[in-house]
Amino acid sequence: MALGTKPTLAIVGATGAVGTVMIDIINGRGSVPWGEIRLIASPRSAGKKITVRGAENTVVALSPEAFDGVDIALFDVPDEVSAEWAPIAVERGAIAVDNSGAFRMDPEVPLVVPEVNAAQVHERPKGIIANPNCTTLSMMAALGALHHEFGLRELVVSSYQAASGAGQEGVDRLYAEVAAVAGKQVGVRGGDVAEALTAAGLPEETPFKAPLALNVVPWAGSRKDDGWTSEELKVRNESRKILGIPELKVSATCVRVPVVTTHSLAVHATFAQDVPVEQARRVFEAQPTVVLQDDPERMAFPTPAAVVGEEPTYVGRIRQALDFPNTLDFFVCGDNLRKGAALNTYEIAETLAG
Amino acid sequence: MALGTKPTLAIVGATGAVGTVMIDIINGRGSVPWGEIRLIASPRSAGKKITVRGAENTVVALSPEAFDGVDIALFDVPDEVSAEWAPIAVERGAIAVDNSGAFRMDPEVPLVVPEVNAAQVHERPKGIIANPNCTTLSMMAALGALHHEFGLRELVVSSYQAASGAGQEGVDRLYAEVAAVAGKQVGVRGGDVAEALTAAGLPEETPFKAPLALNVVPWAGSRKDDGWTSEELKVRNESRKILGIPELKVSATCVRVPVVTTHSLAVHATFAQDVPVEQARRVFEAQPTVVLQDDPERMAFPTPAAVVGEEPTYVGRIRQALDFPNTLDFFVCGDNLRKGAALNTYEIAETLAG
Repeated sequence: MALGTKPTLAIVGATGAVGTVMIDIINGRGSVPWGEIRLIASPRSAGKKITVRGAENTVVALSPEAFDGVDIALFDVPDEVSAEWAPIAVERGAIAVDNSGAFRMDPEVPLVVPEVNAAQVHERPKGIIANPNCTTLSMMAALGALHHEFGLRELVVSSYQAASGAGQEGVDRLYAEVAAVAGKQVGVRGGDVAEALTAAGLPEETPFKAPLALNVVPWAGSRKDDGWTSEELKVRNESRKILGIPELKVSATCVRVPVVTTHSLAVHATFAQDVPVEQARRVFEAQPTVVLQDDPERMAFPTPAAVVGEEPTYVGRIRQALDFPNTLDFFVCGDNLRKGAALNTYEIAETLAG
Repeated sequence: MALGTKPTLAIVGATGAVGTVMIDIINGRGSVPWGEIRLIASPRSAGKKITVRGAENTVVALSPEAFDGVDIALFDVPDEVSAEWAPIAVERGAIAVDNSGAFRMDPEVPLVVPEVNAAQVHERPKGIIANPNCTTLSMMAALGALHHEFGLRELVVSSYQAASGAGQEGVDRLYAEVAAVAGKQVGVRGGDVAEALTAAGLPEETPFKAPLALNVVPWAGSRKDDGWTSEELKVRNESRKILGIPELKVSATCVRVPVVTTHSLAVHATFAQDVPVEQARRVFEAQPTVVLQDDPERMAFPTPAAVVGEEPTYVGRIRQALDFPNTLDFFVCGDNLRKGAALNTYEIAETLAG
């Protein structure tokens, strides 16, 4: 399907955490290929007015008719809402680009990171294109570039995941916990973090299963077979699909850390051939969506707090493994709400618009 | 050398962060084999009174004579102090057990974790026994037990290291940073963590090279060749020496996290044979200094904040790697001031005393 010269773009979930970043990205673009930009949300948010590229835009309620005339519909909603409504958008003539987990592993739905597999946007038997999970996405621009040159074979990954991966609820909880422990001698013998949260009146129920302030939590997502979490299996299965390496060996450990925004990953990647650090650097420097921040002499390396709000993926601490042949160790930081979610979804739409 | 029935124990650096934990451990023991316990510190701290097992004990100044009559001297001081004074203690007749980095890789100094290689305390040509780095130590009780059963071959490790690994200065800095960001919408676009620290008047100079509150910092220790840090090389070299596997393959990425006490490690360990999860559990359950906390159904797993002040190493999230043969992934938490420092040093002394 060829899109018209001024296609209509819809944002479903326009008032949510990722939808808000999406509008922020659209407002920050020098130019956009869109004619109408239609904001869609739950009936509760319908009627709300949001400024998009200087013009006031009124949010409309999610309904089949809301997709009439839409060329591309971006879905930033929970899995079950996408599962129901993306096919409806397609029936009404739109291409659905979905940021939920509902369709990612469907063999008839491409899973796209434009730097890695842009051409797959055109192979969409169901009319749906999926956007990867934010943890996987945080390393894909960097890994895709290396894979293209050197042939990726194995991946051992540990994550340092931000609270905003659990939505606004996660951010609010982390802020509340930090406020509750501030000024207290906790995290030491005789100063229990969990007790400080209870004393401050915080509800025991938390999106993180354990205190997150002054702590790390080795659990993200839901429970899967054999001790794995859904997040860890997504890193494995989505990496394989995006990179087109069905036999890629992957082990991931996903850990939540008290960071508000930006996921980080410690990556141990083995290739089909030797990868000298200088060659890896050249590959990263040639990739426009990757920023190399790696100067041990000046102690320059990326940290998540410094990458917040940035579009590129930051890469540093690049080392050739001392004992593992053909293997690089490096550290990568990517804003999980931007490249990890809204930005990549929007880039898929830009790719479709040509 | 056989020790007398009531050997004299000296603690050098008795007023420091680790020395204080050492006295806390001694005070918490049901019984101790020592006759005199002598507290030694810099002349600045001499004369200070500290209660040890119910009796007031006066700190004496570091001098050659301070070691007269001492059977075992525990050193919790910086590298350069140990390098100078441990040999003096030996000259005066003591066995020196050193918690600094000064002697760890000396081939004539055993590097001891009592659960793993206790017998080596008796092979000490220089009269010195070294205590490992806290990051390495955090996983040694668990890894040593697995190695004994299954034969360790390869190790890929990512750390989540606490601020107290950088001493009291590190703890104070983290508390100050947490207080500076509390109640502020930072770590999001338009809310910079570094600016919040500056606005709160915190000095730019920090032991962590970058903000640690609401951040993680992929740098610990000093710069070594080819992009590696001293901490990462310690994990490699000390693991090889303690486990007695000179050819062990190791890649470590050391990352500081905003946790006060207790180091955590995500471990990807490959063995000479298949290790079913149930067999790994049995090995951990049989190791008295390891606590198994691993029940995915109840979302039970260790976190550093919950392990503070505990003597054992906590292990959870045990999974058989899906794509790597003979490989386990697991998560381990150990109090870096206890097992990671004072406790292991003290256990070496207990081993010497029989």
